[in-house]
Amino acid sequence: MNKNEWPYVTPGIPDDNFIQGKTPLTREEVRVVILTKSRLKRNQVIYDIGAGTGTISIEASLLVAEGTVYAVEKDPEALTLLHKNKEKFGVDNLIIVEGNAAEVMEGLPAADRIIIGGSGGKLKEILELSKDKLKKGDYVTVSAVTLDTLGESQILLGQQPWESFQTVQISVTRVVEIAEYKMLRALNPIYVMSAKRGG
Amino acid sequence: MNKNEWPYVTPGIPDDNFIQGKTPLTREEVRVVILTKSRLKRNQVIYDIGAGTGTISIEASLLVAEGTVYAVEKDPEALTLLHKNKEKFGVDNLIIVEGNAAEVMEGLPAADRIIIGGSGGKLKEILELSKDKLKKGDYVTVSAVTLDTLGESQILLGQQPWESFQTVQISVTRVVEIAEYKMLRALNPIYVMSAKRGG
Amino acid sequence: MNKNEWPYVTPGIPDDNFIQGKTPLTREEVRVVILTKSRLKRNQVIYDIGAGTGTISIEASLLVAEGTVYAVEKDPEALTLLHKNKEKFGVDNLIIVEGNAAEVMEGLPAADRIIIGGSGGKLKEILELSKDKLKKGDYVTVSAVTLDTLGESQILLGQQPWESFQTVQISVTRVVEIAEYKMLRALNPIYVMSAKRGG
Amino acid sequence: MNKNEWPYVTPGIPDDNFIQGKTPLTREEVRVVILTKSRLKRNQVIYDIGAGTGTISIEASLLVAEGTVYAVEKDPEALTLLHKNKEKFGVDNLIIVEGNAAEVMEGLPAADRIIIGGSGGKLKEILELSKDKLKKGDYVTVSAVTLDTLGESQILLGQQPWESFQTVQISVTRVVEIAEYKMLRALNPIYVMSAKRGG
Repeated sequence: MNKNEWPYVTPGIPDDNFIQGKTPLTREEVRVVILTKSRLKRNQVIYDIGAGTGTISIEASLLVAEGTVYAVEKDPEALTLLHKNKEKFGVDNLIIVEGNAAEVMEGLPAADRIIIGGSGGKLKEILELSKDKLKKGDYVTVSAVTLDTLGESQILLGQQPWESFQTVQISVTRVVEIAEYKMLRALNPIYVMSAKRGG
Repeated sequence: MNKNEWPYVTPGIPDDNFIQGKTPLTREEVRVVILTKSRLKRNQVIYDIGAGTGTISIEASLLVAEGTVYAVEKDPEALTLLHKNKEKFGVDNLIIVEGNAAEVMEGLPAADRIIIGGSGGKLKEILELSKDKLKKGDYVTVSAVTLDTLGESQILLGQQPWESFQTVQISVTRVVEIAEYKMLRALNPIYVMSAKRGG
Repeated sequence: MNKNEWPYVTPGIPDDNFIQGKTPLTREEVRVVILTKSRLKRNQVIYDIGAGTGTISIEASLLVAEGTVYAVEKDPEALTLLHKNKEKFGVDNLIIVEGNAAEVMEGLPAADRIIIGGSGGKLKEILELSKDKLKKGDYVTVSAVTLDTLGESQILLGQQPWESFQTVQISVTRVVEIAEYKMLRALNPIYVMSAKRGG
Repeated sequence: MNKNEWPYVTPGIPDDNFIQGKTPLTREEVRVVILTKSRLKRNQVIYDIGAGTGTISIEASLLVAEGTVYAVEKDPEALTLLHKNKEKFGVDNLIIVEGNAAEVMEGLPAADRIIIGGSGGKLKEILELSKDKLKKGDYVTVSAVTLDTLGESQILLGQQPWESFQTVQISVTRVVEIAEYKMLRALNPIYVMSAKRGG
């Protein structure tokens, strides 16, 4: 599958279309909620911080079309997968940036949207830099799979210049057929938070 | 807001953008999962069966753009809201069809996707008609807020000509600020099922 | 730990107190809901059908004290664990019955409560036998981790002689510390159903 | 129903057995998890802080039997319900204490268990006092329906003298029959946290 092979007008590429490693990827149903809450527009510049396997980056690249997605990641194994997935989906507008977000963000062009999927314990610094990269009315989206990130985000995004802060928890259970039984299989819940940069 | 005022490349119109009555509407986060699982393409013909307030119909109308959405609904109160929301969003490609799906579907042009949000106890008949309206490779999506629809769908969509049947349960909890407290407020869980029409 | 070493007045033995194999056991939080819905009294005779590792059986044995628990199980590996856990907890009022419930239930003394955690595809037969073993006002409890058992239970327990049928879905997420992060880890959701035998 | 009329060996009094006001009460399934995590023993002294309608207090009174439960509550409306429910269930070992926990706790006798269902923004003070009231090996249990209490508890219970800190989120969905349909109705999720007082 490549860019021309995702023929649908919504995100939601099935998980197994991505080349995966040991790192758990953001699952289809959760991914579409994160992307939805990010309020993407065509031609925008997006950062995907802690891009991991690249699932959000690739969906975002397809959605913004002539826009650009910067996928920031520091983990070598994740970077390998990120490159493979970029190639697989043929998304030329996806630029992979190697390094700690807190260090490399400064060098990137201004952004319209910042999606933070992993912050490596540097959420405060990343949000501080995000203020400078975004202009009034732009959105930041943070997803949290830990109570640490949840708690920190509640404090940081509840402050100026962040506005219209909202939080949802998404729990997905998939029905999986095992030996003719339809088993209920829970995915881990995730908190998705978004806020708008105020004036 | 009208068609030209939803500037984003994903669905996910906030709930309070819709004109609402007493009928509960399909909430933003669940709506995007239903739309995602429906695998919509531009220019397609979509049926939204049991359209209710019209949230899915309107999002689908915006997504398929030059395609057409037939919103089938029988409840007078819901129909009033459906017309108001169509007008509010200025979606000319949304056609409201009054009546029982099992009776009016036959008269509609062939469909590429059928999304069933309400079946009024006639799921079997609606799926029977859906077989005729869809061609090989097309998708049907059923959402269930009751164990009745869940159970019936599991049987009906597990049979020929339906293939690639999948089921997910989505539970969304929103964080709502009440008197400076961030309360966890659960939305009712919903099962989203989809299947492809086989040959 | 043995019978005299669970000093608390509620059930809820931590999972890791049980000797475990590959079979997933019913987790503490779900177990207490199943036991609660079973409305156990001292001195009662309880069947635990599909007893598995024996977590429900052991908790029930401690709760009914001078009553008796019959743990019915057919899987050899589970039976080994069941015996080991019986020994570990020193519950003399727990009687392990080897075999298919549909075959061995008939030979057991009358029951006051029947808890069905696994039915091996024979739920209908087991509930049929349960009617004969229980008297008016007694309870049956069924837990379901599959949509199959859920669907079948909805039909079977919705009929005479079953009354006061109720269903709840329990989803538990545990916070687990991994490398100083508090990760959200979902357990699979489970449906717990209970009904009273009518006249 | 009174003390002698709850004939079961587990907690789990159905919600509608309690006299209820506008304040939402802790639901049966969640209540049993809170009580379970509190590791109650017969003859113990329990505080139920922010007792509300008294559901936890009454269940605890029945469980500890010859022990004593102090139900601390400041809201006049809740206090009225608390008195009514005490009377209804005939629990003589339940002592209702009117006032702010942070102020009245000091005057109470030493406790074996402290269950905090509401803290009125004074969780820190209440936990500080709890340290003095509990001895080594005793448990405190905090339930949180807000991200505020969740976040604060994570910090406070993660410190000395608190040990063996654990957190679970419980989400319950009830199946409710409405016009012959079995509707899925979510209760709001709740976080239940417990910790042991260290040396």
